[in-house]
Amino acid sequence: MVKKKLNIGLVGCGFMGRTHSNAFRQVPQFFETGHDLVLKAVCARTRPLAEAFAGNWGYETVETDWRDMVTRPDIDLIDIATPNNSHAEIAVAAAKAGKMVACEKPLGASLADSEAMVRAVEAAGVANMVWYNYRRVPAVTFAKQLVDEGRLGRIFHYRAKFLQDWTMSSDLPQGGAGLWRLDGEVAGSGVTGDLLAHCIDTAMWLNGGISEVSAMTETFIRERHHVGSGKVQPVVIDDASAFLARFDNGSLATFEATRYARGHKALYTLEINGEHGSIAWDLHDLHRLELFDHRDPGATRGWRSIHITDGDHPYMKRWWVPGLQIGYEHSFIHQMADFLEGLDGQGSGVPSFREALGTDRVTDAVLRSAHDRQWVSIANAEL
Amino acid sequence: MVKKKLNIGLVGCGFMGRTHSNAFRQVPQFFETGHDLVLKAVCARTRPLAEAFAGNWGYETVETDWRDMVTRPDIDLIDIATPNNSHAEIAVAAAKAGKMVACEKPLGASLADSEAMVRAVEAAGVANMVWYNYRRVPAVTFAKQLVDEGRLGRIFHYRAKFLQDWTMSSDLPQGGAGLWRLDGEVAGSGVTGDLLAHCIDTAMWLNGGISEVSAMTETFIRERHHVGSGKVQPVVIDDASAFLARFDNGSLATFEATRYARGHKALYTLEINGEHGSIAWDLHDLHRLELFDHRDPGATRGWRSIHITDGDHPYMKRWWVPGLQIGYEHSFIHQMADFLEGLDGQGSGVPSFREALGTDRVTDAVLRSAHDRQWVSIANAEL
Amino acid sequence: MVKKKLNIGLVGCGFMGRTHSNAFRQVPQFFETGHDLVLKAVCARTRPLAEAFAGNWGYETVETDWRDMVTRPDIDLIDIATPNNSHAEIAVAAAKAGKMVACEKPLGASLADSEAMVRAVEAAGVANMVWYNYRRVPAVTFAKQLVDEGRLGRIFHYRAKFLQDWTMSSDLPQGGAGLWRLDGEVAGSGVTGDLLAHCIDTAMWLNGGISEVSAMTETFIRERHHVGSGKVQPVVIDDASAFLARFDNGSLATFEATRYARGHKALYTLEINGEHGSIAWDLHDLHRLELFDHRDPGATRGWRSIHITDGDHPYMKRWWVPGLQIGYEHSFIHQMADFLEGLDGQGSGVPSFREALGTDRVTDAVLRSAHDRQWVSIANAEL
Amino acid sequence: MVKKKLNIGLVGCGFMGRTHSNAFRQVPQFFETGHDLVLKAVCARTRPLAEAFAGNWGYETVETDWRDMVTRPDIDLIDIATPNNSHAEIAVAAAKAGKMVACEKPLGASLADSEAMVRAVEAAGVANMVWYNYRRVPAVTFAKQLVDEGRLGRIFHYRAKFLQDWTMSSDLPQGGAGLWRLDGEVAGSGVTGDLLAHCIDTAMWLNGGISEVSAMTETFIRERHHVGSGKVQPVVIDDASAFLARFDNGSLATFEATRYARGHKALYTLEINGEHGSIAWDLHDLHRLELFDHRDPGATRGWRSIHITDGDHPYMKRWWVPGLQIGYEHSFIHQMADFLEGLDGQGSGVPSFREALGTDRVTDAVLRSAHDRQWVSIANAEL
Repeated sequence: MVKKKLNIGLVGCGFMGRTHSNAFRQVPQFFETGHDLVLKAVCARTRPLAEAFAGNWGYETVETDWRDMVTRPDIDLIDIATPNNSHAEIAVAAAKAGKMVACEKPLGASLADSEAMVRAVEAAGVANMVWYNYRRVPAVTFAKQLVDEGRLGRIFHYRAKFLQDWTMSSDLPQGGAGLWRLDGEVAGSGVTGDLLAHCIDTAMWLNGGISEVSAMTETFIRERHHVGSGKVQPVVIDDASAFLARFDNGSLATFEATRYARGHKALYTLEINGEHGSIAWDLHDLHRLELFDHRDPGATRGWRSIHITDGDHPYMKRWWVPGLQIGYEHSFIHQMADFLEGLDGQGSGVPSFREALGTDRVTDAVLRSAHDRQWVSIANAEL
Repeated sequence: MVKKKLNIGLVGCGFMGRTHSNAFRQVPQFFETGHDLVLKAVCARTRPLAEAFAGNWGYETVETDWRDMVTRPDIDLIDIATPNNSHAEIAVAAAKAGKMVACEKPLGASLADSEAMVRAVEAAGVANMVWYNYRRVPAVTFAKQLVDEGRLGRIFHYRAKFLQDWTMSSDLPQGGAGLWRLDGEVAGSGVTGDLLAHCIDTAMWLNGGISEVSAMTETFIRERHHVGSGKVQPVVIDDASAFLARFDNGSLATFEATRYARGHKALYTLEINGEHGSIAWDLHDLHRLELFDHRDPGATRGWRSIHITDGDHPYMKRWWVPGLQIGYEHSFIHQMADFLEGLDGQGSGVPSFREALGTDRVTDAVLRSAHDRQWVSIANAEL
Repeated sequence: MVKKKLNIGLVGCGFMGRTHSNAFRQVPQFFETGHDLVLKAVCARTRPLAEAFAGNWGYETVETDWRDMVTRPDIDLIDIATPNNSHAEIAVAAAKAGKMVACEKPLGASLADSEAMVRAVEAAGVANMVWYNYRRVPAVTFAKQLVDEGRLGRIFHYRAKFLQDWTMSSDLPQGGAGLWRLDGEVAGSGVTGDLLAHCIDTAMWLNGGISEVSAMTETFIRERHHVGSGKVQPVVIDDASAFLARFDNGSLATFEATRYARGHKALYTLEINGEHGSIAWDLHDLHRLELFDHRDPGATRGWRSIHITDGDHPYMKRWWVPGLQIGYEHSFIHQMADFLEGLDGQGSGVPSFREALGTDRVTDAVLRSAHDRQWVSIANAEL
Repeated sequence: MVKKKLNIGLVGCGFMGRTHSNAFRQVPQFFETGHDLVLKAVCARTRPLAEAFAGNWGYETVETDWRDMVTRPDIDLIDIATPNNSHAEIAVAAAKAGKMVACEKPLGASLADSEAMVRAVEAAGVANMVWYNYRRVPAVTFAKQLVDEGRLGRIFHYRAKFLQDWTMSSDLPQGGAGLWRLDGEVAGSGVTGDLLAHCIDTAMWLNGGISEVSAMTETFIRERHHVGSGKVQPVVIDDASAFLARFDNGSLATFEATRYARGHKALYTLEINGEHGSIAWDLHDLHRLELFDHRDPGATRGWRSIHITDGDHPYMKRWWVPGLQIGYEHSFIHQMADFLEGLDGQGSGVPSFREALGTDRVTDAVLRSAHDRQWVSIANAEL
């Protein structure tokens, strides 16, 4: 098989730049794809930063202005790993330049941004995806299979939480390297867009559309030093966000995210309760899926702790042998492999911009509901 | 020490009649109290039922009308273990007769009932308590100590769930032996009063008052055969109930209860996240408390699974030796022992009627919020 | 049904005296039996001790010399809850007096003692049992059912441990109240007879006879103050004991017990691996059984954590409702109920003196193997 | 910093060839080292196999006879990932050719082989290591730090198991692709060299030398089709192996490995009990370390489940952010990084051939003990 080259241009050298780059490098050794991934260029604000990153990960060239990158003829795919408030501008420009676009989540920093992004990629007809990577944790992908097979029957309940504790110190400033997530202007929102967005993406993938929400948010530390302004300023992002929801299928849900839950670093948990069974998963032990099957004989019914490391579990035959777990980064590798498979015409199932817009509509409704203290319906409006 | 006799009259011979009777019988062997408990009389609807129960548990006499029992001069304490809609009438009559009153939870089947009950016991000046037994699970009592010592610091989050799956079959009728909980007229509400009431009682004990709620409820199976009427009738109780809340101390909360969560029989879980640490507990492994202490040195921080069986854990020196767990029924034994200690003038800490009214105000607000689809504030109204 | 009276005489007022007495008191409320249990007499070394115990538990009379008790015509069953080195004398005398005999484990303090005890009860033809209570933990009883049904198929491995940490301080003396287990003369052996005996009893019940062992023992703290002599003396009991074994059915086993395992209070664990599945249990969460069934479909195979609280689990319909756990003491209640059922002619399955002798033969072989540093075969000798 | 090139020649393209190759490729992006790793050549039995492997992993050239590879002047390090019985010949030749040598475990297929290998690398003065990768799981490395700091105090017990279930079908042949581990001639031994060797390496690293063992082994399926001979032949490897041991420091140990433990794929567990605390770890959840610290205040003592994903845990600052776990393959990456650090003169701590010989002396003693049915002392003989 002759492989097509796929030249990648990455914008952003932070944490997500690393996870994406690792995925680009690891896919070829573990998945058979029709494409040769080429790490063609990386863009950062300063040349030394870009060069260091390029040197480490093997990018062939560097840029310091993403505008130069998105028009380069030798780039096929623009991968956006910058803070949220720059996603839209880059993505729209890339789409206009006819590039495929991959974008870190959430899609845009505002609903208007997200809509513009969907319009741009669809108008251009370019392949697109958003890095809602948790769908590609094998246990979550396997949960999707079980749900789709009807193993759980009618769904009654969905439950998701994403709990962290990394911003609990009042000494932490807004903005600056690694802390842009605390700066409302850059991040758009706090945990709603950062953490709940993940929960919502998985939830809608597994359980369908969300029709209405009632939410509350809180900012526990209300003033912090701002790195940009040099002053102590009000914090405008939400430290915690929780909501009740109803799905289109009639099931009820509770969602919660916070950065003020001591003892939890990245505890993304989900649980689904259906007529015939239930499923639970958590990111802290991502290689396990808990399954309760009511059709097991009564006395020996119990929650099964399935160690998702067997060859007949999603993705796992690509890796090691049964019993040997994989980690967080593999979810990105799997998503990239699926994206490439999609390019080969086999249907990817990766989260498209349009799907990610659906998630943004929910987070937007959550923020409005919390602000207005009332239930908000999710409009499945035409774009 | 000469012990005073305390003559008990029990109304109701169902599941809760059994747990209370067992507590009355077991307290004396394990706790030093100033009272001799005498199982003086039990009341059931029919004489054979009452006699069988009396024979099994050692009650000296039987009654078939509770009105006869509450006025008997040889009864000191009336214990109410009947379905919810009879609590108020019995309790008020017992208080008027000058009896101490113990009542199964929830206090009344309606807020008006509950208020009348508080007025009655307080006007009569009789000792009173409500069987919110889960406070007396040693792990929960220990959690209370840790919170009161300030071990967790400022509280940010409270989270409670009570998940069951026993009513998921549409074949189950409303009413009848053991199924009065499905009959709205008898039960007052569904999981809100049955399960959330437990969650709320513990929550307010551990974390103070709740100021406002936004709730949703659902009835998944909307018609069932009614044992009383012999007809298929609409189900008026809530099968599931969830709410967002704010506590007076500024912390945020999510609460949820359902009887439609496959795989969970009685999974009452709670978690508190504070500035310095977190606590988690669940009823399915009630002898364990999970504690995260942020003041542990960084690299060796972790959730501690504390096996609550040591002599320095609440109540446990009364039982066996370290490592040997106790069960569900012990929570009732502990509550009765604490009640007796309170009679001896040492302050009981058991849930009073007035405290239970506070819980009912929250469940009432939950039901109104769900009905009206809006946030509801909890009035700390004068009675 | 007219019940027969069964008059009980208890010898010993320590920890085990309490667990047995609680069982005698609790059986009638929860199990239907053909006998009325009467707590007729209790014997302790001093009258005040005996009277306090009798007052607490409801024994009608007291004795201070067990010789007086075993010949009392109003006693039907002698229950022995004294230190090990007095078991034989009491049991033999009781049997000769025609009493039923229940005895705390291990049977005798030496193999010769144990053999004499078996001879005595069998010659007298009296009902007898040894309190190997862990067979009656519902999860363990359920494991026995699964094994007997062939659910595991051919057995390859058996694994048991009993880990404690209560004697690790060198300040702890030998002998004295509660510490006779450290006094070799009284206890006979250390953890071998105390803890391994439990493991072996369960193992032989579940998996059949043990044919040979290779063992090692250790005494970590080699001198302690002796309460009796008032001097520092060599410790002669084993602090730790481990052995390899082969069962008659060809399976391999490892056994270990110690009082020097920090963090474990009474961690008795067992695991069985068979052709079709595996089973695991531990005393620290005694209400759960872990089951792996290889015949589950491949991708959804996992260890099932079975919450042994349902009505179709052994003994559990006698107690509360699904989801509500029981504790340690219930194993004694169950054993007593089974013993009574055996008296009614329905076959008890409780551990007889003869079965307990089988266990002693293994512990004896373990001690000899450790001493002689060689494999020792278990003689299934004629008595 | 100018990096030195380190040209690698890999022998063997099986499972371990993959894990090593992945490590070579991943080290540079995550660790700062003084060397540029160059995947210079790979050797397999057939050219197509070698070329496919080279194509996938990026090896520059291929060989089909390892003898040609070990003498190539452009190779600095020979990495041996072949079946056990070829380790010695390749390693000795490589050392004689002045190459650094890395070798899959166990060192040799026999003790004589292993001794020859140590002599060869030490005579040649070449850097060497054996892939006992589990030392480099961050939780295990962290356990080593805690032990070395004296956190556990005097050690009383060590316990290790490695349980699998992949060879339980009698249809599985001896030999052939992937099944050479069942062929005694190729593997040398069964689980003793394959699984126990891992347990012993970690144990001696954490707890020092082993002085004596008493072992038993078993072959449950005694005849299997042999791929080489085409006949049904006796199986000569051990399916299960267990032993008692004493360490030089006076602690007692039990070790067990089997391929007949249903439900366990690669359950390598270890536990250490010391005076002040205990540690437990298992490979199925390799990113967690369980720690019990007796110096915690009594009532809040508990086993801490430490999620080994923080920046102050070994290796973890190289990877993602707290809460995000890594997998099995990372242990190889870490070992390679440590090896390179050792070349830079900072002391590597990776398992040397000499250390691996120590492990082989124990496995050899285990096999002899099982055969002779007696305790065997481990000679710390001069080589």
